[in-house]
Amino acid sequence: MKIILASASPRRRELLHQIGWNFEICVSQVEEKITKTLPWEVVEELSCQKAEDVFVRMLGSRKAEAASEEAAASSLVEEPVPAGAEDSLLVIGADTIVACDGRILGKPADREDAVAMLKLLQGRSHYVYTGVTLCLHRADGESVRRTFHEATEVNFYPMTEEEIQWYVDSGEPMDKAGSYGIQGLCARYISGIAGDYNNVVGLPVGRLYQEVQKLGGIHEESSHI
Amino acid sequence: MKIILASASPRRRELLHQIGWNFEICVSQVEEKITKTLPWEVVEELSCQKAEDVFVRMLGSRKAEAASEEAAASSLVEEPVPAGAEDSLLVIGADTIVACDGRILGKPADREDAVAMLKLLQGRSHYVYTGVTLCLHRADGESVRRTFHEATEVNFYPMTEEEIQWYVDSGEPMDKAGSYGIQGLCARYISGIAGDYNNVVGLPVGRLYQEVQKLGGIHEESSHI
Repeated sequence: MKIILASASPRRRELLHQIGWNFEICVSQVEEKITKTLPWEVVEELSCQKAEDVFVRMLGSRKAEAASEEAAASSLVEEPVPAGAEDSLLVIGADTIVACDGRILGKPADREDAVAMLKLLQGRSHYVYTGVTLCLHRADGESVRRTFHEATEVNFYPMTEEEIQWYVDSGEPMDKAGSYGIQGLCARYISGIAGDYNNVVGLPVGRLYQEVQKLGGIHEESSHI
Repeated sequence: MKIILASASPRRRELLHQIGWNFEICVSQVEEKITKTLPWEVVEELSCQKAEDVFVRMLGSRKAEAASEEAAASSLVEEPVPAGAEDSLLVIGADTIVACDGRILGKPADREDAVAMLKLLQGRSHYVYTGVTLCLHRADGESVRRTFHEATEVNFYPMTEEEIQWYVDSGEPMDKAGSYGIQGLCARYISGIAGDYNNVVGLPVGRLYQEVQKLGGIHEESSHI
C-alpha cells in the first residue's frame, strides 16, 4: 500500500515514522473553508478537505499514467497492463486545534497574541482536538473514506508572568496552535493529560493505526522499519 | 547551579534536555535494595538510593578539591578560598516501574517474558510509577532532600497474537520496564493515558521542574538552551 501524508507538519511526519510506516508527503493546496462551529466538527471538516484534495490529485495522475502506459503497450503490441495490478493508495489528512472556554485558539499572530493565549491556558485545563480523514483507494478499484477525531484534555500548572515571557522569548510558541508545544520546553508547565498524547502533538497515531487496520490494514513486511 | 542526573537512561537525558536544562550525568553505583512492597514506595526508595549515592560522592570529591586548593593557597601565602563561594549542586535520581493487577513488571528477561507481559497489558489499563529524589546542596552549605512520585494510567488497545509477535520481533520491548516503549512503535497500540506522559517515558519533567522551583529554582539565563 502506498501511504501519503497530506500535511507539511514535521511533527506529524515524525509521529508516522515513530509507528514504523513508510510514506510520502504531498501537501494539500486547497483553500480551507470552515462551515462548522464546534471544534471537533471544524477539525474533521478541515482534515477532510486536505485529504480529498490530495486524493483526487493522486488518483488523477495515476489514471493519466495508466492511460499513457496502455497506449505505449498497445503500440508495441506487447502484453497489456493487467487490470487491478495497481497498488492500493491511502491518503491521510489531519487538522489540530486548541479549544478553551469555547474559544478556538489557532497559531499566534504575534508575540502579544502568544502571551495572551498562555495567560488564558495557564493554571487550568483545556482541550486539543485533532480531526483525521483517511481516503483509501483499494487495489480492486473501490474507494472508501473515513473521518474521525480524538479529544485530549491538557492540564497546565500555574505560570508566572516571568515564565510566560521566558517561554515566548524561546520562540517555541510561534508556529503552534494554542501557542505551546507539549513535546518541547512547555513540558515543564504541563501537569498531565487525559487522552492521547500524540493527538496533542498533532496526530493520534494509536487511533489512526486502529482505523487503518479496520479498513484492511497494512502489510508489516513492507512498512516496518 | 550544577545539575547532575544520576541515571544512565538515554530517555531521561532527552527529557531533561527537552525542558532546556544543562546538566551532567553521573551514574549511581549503589546496589539497589528494595525493602518496600507498594509500587510507589519502591520507586521512591530506589530513586533515593541512586540520588544519595551520587550526591555523597560528588560532595566528597568537592571537599577533597577544596582542601587541596586551601593547602595550595596557604603554602603560597595568598588569599584564602572564600567560604560559600562554591556553586550549588542538584542531584536528580529516578526509578520507573510498571504495575498491573498488583504485579510489578520490570524489564523482560527474554523474548517469552516480553510476550507474556504484553499479553497481560493488552486491551486494558495499568499504571506506571516514577519516583524522583532531589538532593540539593545550596551555596550557603545547607543540604535538602525531596522525594516524590508520579502515577500515570496507560490504556492499551487489544493486540492480536500477530501484533504481539511483530512488536517483540522489533526489539523495542527488550530494555524497557513492562516490555513497551510509549514513545516508540508501541504508540500504535495505546489509546490514551491519564496523567503525565513523560512519567511513562521515565521522568515526570513537569513535576520535577515545579519541585525544583519550590526549592529555589534555576537561573534561566544559565540553563536555557
